[in-house]
Amino acid sequence: MPKLIKKLAVLTSGGDSPGMNAAIRSVVRTCAYHNIQCIGVYRGYEGLIEGDFKEMDARSVRGIINKGGTILKSARSKEFRTKEGRQKAHKHLIENNVDGLVVIGGDGSFTGALIFNQEFGFPVMGIPGTIDNDIFGTSHTLGFDTALNTVVDAIDKIRDTASSHNRLFFIEVMGRDAGHIALNTGVAGGAEEILIPEEDLGMERLVDSLNRSRKTGKTSSIVVVAEGDKIGKNIFELKDYVDQNMEGYDVRVSVLGHMQRGGPPSCFDRVLASRMGVKAVESLLEGKTNFMVGLLNSKMELTPLDKAIKGKTKINLELLRVSDIMST
Amino acid sequence: MPKLIKKLAVLTSGGDSPGMNAAIRSVVRTCAYHNIQCIGVYRGYEGLIEGDFKEMDARSVRGIINKGGTILKSARSKEFRTKEGRQKAHKHLIENNVDGLVVIGGDGSFTGALIFNQEFGFPVMGIPGTIDNDIFGTSHTLGFDTALNTVVDAIDKIRDTASSHNRLFFIEVMGRDAGHIALNTGVAGGAEEILIPEEDLGMERLVDSLNRSRKTGKTSSIVVVAEGDKIGKNIFELKDYVDQNMEGYDVRVSVLGHMQRGGPPSCFDRVLASRMGVKAVESLLEGKTNFMVGLLNSKMELTPLDKAIKGKTKINLELLRVSDIMST
Amino acid sequence: MPKLIKKLAVLTSGGDSPGMNAAIRSVVRTCAYHNIQCIGVYRGYEGLIEGDFKEMDARSVRGIINKGGTILKSARSKEFRTKEGRQKAHKHLIENNVDGLVVIGGDGSFTGALIFNQEFGFPVMGIPGTIDNDIFGTSHTLGFDTALNTVVDAIDKIRDTASSHNRLFFIEVMGRDAGHIALNTGVAGGAEEILIPEEDLGMERLVDSLNRSRKTGKTSSIVVVAEGDKIGKNIFELKDYVDQNMEGYDVRVSVLGHMQRGGPPSCFDRVLASRMGVKAVESLLEGKTNFMVGLLNSKMELTPLDKAIKGKTKINLELLRVSDIMST
Amino acid sequence: MPKLIKKLAVLTSGGDSPGMNAAIRSVVRTCAYHNIQCIGVYRGYEGLIEGDFKEMDARSVRGIINKGGTILKSARSKEFRTKEGRQKAHKHLIENNVDGLVVIGGDGSFTGALIFNQEFGFPVMGIPGTIDNDIFGTSHTLGFDTALNTVVDAIDKIRDTASSHNRLFFIEVMGRDAGHIALNTGVAGGAEEILIPEEDLGMERLVDSLNRSRKTGKTSSIVVVAEGDKIGKNIFELKDYVDQNMEGYDVRVSVLGHMQRGGPPSCFDRVLASRMGVKAVESLLEGKTNFMVGLLNSKMELTPLDKAIKGKTKINLELLRVSDIMST
Repeated sequence: MPKLIKKLAVLTSGGDSPGMNAAIRSVVRTCAYHNIQCIGVYRGYEGLIEGDFKEMDARSVRGIINKGGTILKSARSKEFRTKEGRQKAHKHLIENNVDGLVVIGGDGSFTGALIFNQEFGFPVMGIPGTIDNDIFGTSHTLGFDTALNTVVDAIDKIRDTASSHNRLFFIEVMGRDAGHIALNTGVAGGAEEILIPEEDLGMERLVDSLNRSRKTGKTSSIVVVAEGDKIGKNIFELKDYVDQNMEGYDVRVSVLGHMQRGGPPSCFDRVLASRMGVKAVESLLEGKTNFMVGLLNSKMELTPLDKAIKGKTKINLELLRVSDIMST
Repeated sequence: MPKLIKKLAVLTSGGDSPGMNAAIRSVVRTCAYHNIQCIGVYRGYEGLIEGDFKEMDARSVRGIINKGGTILKSARSKEFRTKEGRQKAHKHLIENNVDGLVVIGGDGSFTGALIFNQEFGFPVMGIPGTIDNDIFGTSHTLGFDTALNTVVDAIDKIRDTASSHNRLFFIEVMGRDAGHIALNTGVAGGAEEILIPEEDLGMERLVDSLNRSRKTGKTSSIVVVAEGDKIGKNIFELKDYVDQNMEGYDVRVSVLGHMQRGGPPSCFDRVLASRMGVKAVESLLEGKTNFMVGLLNSKMELTPLDKAIKGKTKINLELLRVSDIMST
Repeated sequence: MPKLIKKLAVLTSGGDSPGMNAAIRSVVRTCAYHNIQCIGVYRGYEGLIEGDFKEMDARSVRGIINKGGTILKSARSKEFRTKEGRQKAHKHLIENNVDGLVVIGGDGSFTGALIFNQEFGFPVMGIPGTIDNDIFGTSHTLGFDTALNTVVDAIDKIRDTASSHNRLFFIEVMGRDAGHIALNTGVAGGAEEILIPEEDLGMERLVDSLNRSRKTGKTSSIVVVAEGDKIGKNIFELKDYVDQNMEGYDVRVSVLGHMQRGGPPSCFDRVLASRMGVKAVESLLEGKTNFMVGLLNSKMELTPLDKAIKGKTKINLELLRVSDIMST
Repeated sequence: MPKLIKKLAVLTSGGDSPGMNAAIRSVVRTCAYHNIQCIGVYRGYEGLIEGDFKEMDARSVRGIINKGGTILKSARSKEFRTKEGRQKAHKHLIENNVDGLVVIGGDGSFTGALIFNQEFGFPVMGIPGTIDNDIFGTSHTLGFDTALNTVVDAIDKIRDTASSHNRLFFIEVMGRDAGHIALNTGVAGGAEEILIPEEDLGMERLVDSLNRSRKTGKTSSIVVVAEGDKIGKNIFELKDYVDQNMEGYDVRVSVLGHMQRGGPPSCFDRVLASRMGVKAVESLLEGKTNFMVGLLNSKMELTPLDKAIKGKTKINLELLRVSDIMST
């Protein structure tokens, strides 16, 4: 069966992340290296359903390794959640003689891929692309490292003005269910406190902590808050609480937003994407299916898709402790 | 009278901007060059009132030319708006044998300086420091160029994700009363529309324009909105309007916020700050007072403070037209 | 005659500079705005001679405003210096019904354009694109501002290591005939000395100056040297001289090289490029020829090409003085 | 014995790297957290010999996490290689009641620390700080990740101009004995070839490879060369060889140089530095000595100093293969 693969398709799905283009490039070039054909699918599963395909060779992916976003575009597809949608998709793949599919995306995209395989026996392989780093089976998802640097750069800028004015800033970073971005950038940005969904600090402890740090002579402070944190309903309520319960603070809020998803990928993400693309294609060529490629202990490893979907990444407790010590 | 100047003071006031440190450095070093003493005043007029002073020499300002924010810190002072406050400030200056004051800040700070001079005959000189570029008498205020690059870098990142998902983004940039940042970054960021306080585009024209650009095949769009724009009460209402009145758009909002005020100053702002510091000190040494230094036609020029305060900077109409042509 | 223009061609020639793509985009979109056709010529005059043309519309230039380099590529053409070469070029333009030519480049490229016009009466318009800022008739050439920021960023990095090790660094920046880059980045980078072709400092004065600054307690130093500086035959001889004539210095050399030509253009360069493209096209449409568009006193102005070629830009003497004062 | 530790000293030694300041901050704050005193030693072992010490508390290290270089300065010390030198150093530590020493540096610095411990039984702990990533016992040295991003950013800029002019660029990056920087940045920068000391490609194979890639239509190429590569005596000889043996290439050389050592540390390096500082201090407090802290499989681990010195890091062979596949 492995010998049958002569043509692969690749798509990007879900929220885009820096490094997706580098991964597409790697998939396409690894195909070229092994003399198999490669098709790019536009707009994720939407394009699969519509047969929005494009033949790609080594030249098609020139000059994209350093570009954010995805040249194949991405989308969320409702129709792919229906059997009819998936049947259309399968028909297009078969008509185009495609023998395997590489899906670059997150949890939701992998779930789609798994169901697709279960229904049609079509070989699929996942590459974890999301800035949130919330996928089991890899220490780093594509785009996480780049997003960290983007956030830290923004925190550095905000600190300039915070310390010029003795202000307290609440900075919201991405991470609806996971505090990885908040935790790492909080430590790297020298934040006094870091609020993450995995740990309920409680409003009072936050106020205590800020008061304590103020007593040591600190006149400006940064608190990094993950989108998904549950302390306040949202970051503006957090500000209101502090305004009402703490004296003498000039509190500001900054929501970093979508710029966290863009920008040229970092060296780390480009190298990771290149390695993942090679591993994904070669695993399909070896006859494997239903796996996600990942970085574990500095090596490329495969994790079954169902494990990658169900498994829960844990917050680095050591890092939480480092954060506490650093805000001494 | 000019011969009398043996000691100057310098302060930063109002919102901070990148280049303020470079200007402080220049004031201090120009004093050193002319063998006069220099005192740094902390927290703007607040520190003037409290006598929060520090002697500064050429070494005190090492390693700050590339730092955002202001090492002298900044503040807004209510007390300086009272006669009593200003009297205290004057007393501290006299007791410390200070003969002239350089104020780095915006309109409000210059108004304070002018009143101070009128009451006590104390020589004052202004350096325009604000990212908004809304001060008459200079083509560029300190920090404007840096803020432009910060904003354009963020727009570039957002465009990566916008074009991957075929989204419409409203991006809010600073500029409460002036659209200079929005206009320049809108052109540089390739925005489809730019909404500024100086020009009331009207909701309908905005919708028309977006529909037109969509018909030409554009699937993602960026609209840059100045904080002070009056079309919608705020940018979120703008989003709601489009959500309700336009079909098929996935609209997102990004408020860039305070990171626009920070970061290492651009080459332009560092050079401008260095030139302005020299001009400010040497003008005081020549016996001049109540002026603001500015960049006019590539040269350092003086504008009377009252003109700088009252004068209104105009939006570059040519640039508005360029923006229209570019979104063809 | 002005009414005759229905089709323009645009090319980039000579050394590339950041902002060239933004200028191409502006030329193309201004043509679209005025409903005239536009042709892109590849590889400068080489492509003109070979008829290497491509029709361009508003969509062809999407997503390039923030890219360094030039999508039309650039080259230096020996054949265009011959009458035969220019005849071939003219033939291609006529055969393609092109009515005017926009040349984005430097002195040499403008000389070619002028001769071409004199021989064939073909309307030409120049846009000054070079990082060196050595073209008469504009306060800023395209790419100059971006290159300044690239250099200053590199100097900041080198200073980190210089001051950690108490070292003296000679940093060579571009500028074969002009010290504009060296002078501006030297001031912005806090250099102790700046060596430019326009001013012969002399080795002894350099050594004196370094010794003096060392006596004030400075243990590390940066000297910015323009490529074209005549003090030493090259920067390595400069290092040797200091090694042999000054004690206790650990001298290092860094030649920044070609990275100065690349990178995403700054906001300033993108806006400038957009304005210049509009002005160039509209001037041709008005029947003008043999001009270069330029930025003078913040406005778009035309300068006859022969003046732009022969005129000599002068170094800003005020800036030289500011540099002296700052290294107090 | 562990209970005896009441005061630690910290120094930076050898070539500086981004993240050293973040590590100093972490050592100082971890001391503060555990209520022990901390002394900063200036200029590495030189300062140890001279007793150039400074008491440091949590406030001394504010605002340095994002700064390149080292506030404690660094130096290479000949005197510390003598018994007399080390005796002086020991005397100063004893007189100042210091109970343990944290050394942030590379191989050479660790050798000094180990000898020092063997002679005087003085507790020492190493933190690997070098951009070269050539230290055994850690997957990442401090500064490596930052340097990778600096190099990749420079390659991106050079590629802009390379592809505009169809040029071949040899880019020299740091790494005297190790190709880690070259290998990673070569993959991330999309280099056609990567020349590293660990692998002797041979001139002919290089020429073959370039010719092959040219035949596939590539008109510009990037070759990344590690400083320590042995193919040519140096990169300029490499250029000469290609100039003489390959036709039609316009070859340029760029030596990136010392800017690779500076700049604000990446998020990764700041987090790593924070974790390493905590681990180093707490390991000394637990009575351990003669270890280096390192990152192994995402965890903080200790490696005996002698192993860290003698052990040889290996080049990632998988990455070499990925590089080959990518330049298909």
